[in-house]
Amino acid sequence: LSKRSGVPIPTIKYYLREGLLPPGDATAANQADYSDDHLRRLKLIRALIDVGGVSVAGARDVVAALADDTTPPIGLLGVAQNAIMPRRRPGRDTPEWAAARARVTALIDARGWLSDPDTPIMDTAADALAASVTLGITELADHLDGYADTASSLAASEVDIVLDRADPAGRMEAVVLGTVLGEALFGALRMLAHQHESARRLNAARPARDTGAAPVVPRA
Amino acid sequence: LSKRSGVPIPTIKYYLREGLLPPGDATAANQADYSDDHLRRLKLIRALIDVGGVSVAGARDVVAALADDTTPPIGLLGVAQNAIMPRRRPGRDTPEWAAARARVTALIDARGWLSDPDTPIMDTAADALAASVTLGITELADHLDGYADTASSLAASEVDIVLDRADPAGRMEAVVLGTVLGEALFGALRMLAHQHESARRLNAARPARDTGAAPVVPRA
Repeated sequence: LSKRSGVPIPTIKYYLREGLLPPGDATAANQADYSDDHLRRLKLIRALIDVGGVSVAGARDVVAALADDTTPPIGLLGVAQNAIMPRRRPGRDTPEWAAARARVTALIDARGWLSDPDTPIMDTAADALAASVTLGITELADHLDGYADTASSLAASEVDIVLDRADPAGRMEAVVLGTVLGEALFGALRMLAHQHESARRLNAARPARDTGAAPVVPRA
Repeated sequence: LSKRSGVPIPTIKYYLREGLLPPGDATAANQADYSDDHLRRLKLIRALIDVGGVSVAGARDVVAALADDTTPPIGLLGVAQNAIMPRRRPGRDTPEWAAARARVTALIDARGWLSDPDTPIMDTAADALAASVTLGITELADHLDGYADTASSLAASEVDIVLDRADPAGRMEAVVLGTVLGEALFGALRMLAHQHESARRLNAARPARDTGAAPVVPRA
């Protein structure tokens, strides 16, 4: 399994101990056979951890939810989102934070979004909004509806892509991988686009060359 | 400073030792005065670390680039992007990865994006793309142009917002905070939109009730 996947043996043993990988078929006291399913599961775990930045505990939650046939797709989405959600909890006892949280709730309500009312992600959105307001960067709050529009159209096309998969097992895996890898891919493209737009704008904004006209105010 | 910011004294001492905060004006052997600038700097550091998930080393880099008057905005953007970039480096010695990396380069070239040719972010994009292809989720690769379109329009409006700020010092801070907090805010909204779209689609896709028509194939 190590040879086929490129994952070192101690790491595979660690995943087995931590319950991320099911045990292989024992063929001797300290030998076991691993199937193609093991290989695929191992690749999935590595994608979650290495590319998606998911913790080992988060990967175990995702793998358990995937293996459980009774998990509905929407429940699996929640597990995958929780796995990539930051674990930090900045101070939330300020009036700025309460106002930001109310703003997020109002946004969700105004748009009629069917978001999970118990999701911790509304708090995460309020964290970013409150921090920007506290630091005087009110532009983020002003841009909230634009962000929501973009998030909405992006999510609609991604959900369509995943749900259009024919095989149910593949569809469930695509919910997980679309969430984790889609986030990583889009985040990287967004940073590259920022580099481009900044370079474009900053070059365009370069001041025009001196035309030789006499300065209006005489030099000191 | 601790009372005004809500940040515990040991944490402030740690930031002073690590060079994130400049020392205050010493008023006695073990007393110092801290100004409004210190308070603002401290709030900025907390936003980077608590909301943006930036490491202490990353925050130090950002703060140093901000304090250096010779840093151009585009350089500061790179420092802020590096600070929120994942530090993981998954296996990159596979043909799938090389193909994914070539695909990213081709995308940037085709669009004429003025991205930094030495940026590690192209590799990060290739990580996500290669992992999805390896796991048979080819939809992400198929959707690459749609992602690039969305990333591009999002980045254009964000860069406009930041560069339209009147004061140069505030503009530099906005580059940093727009990058870090804008990413956190948009990421959270995107997850909420995913919840909505999934709930909407899965309800809409519920199979129609049995109409009573006789089955074409007789039951066994």
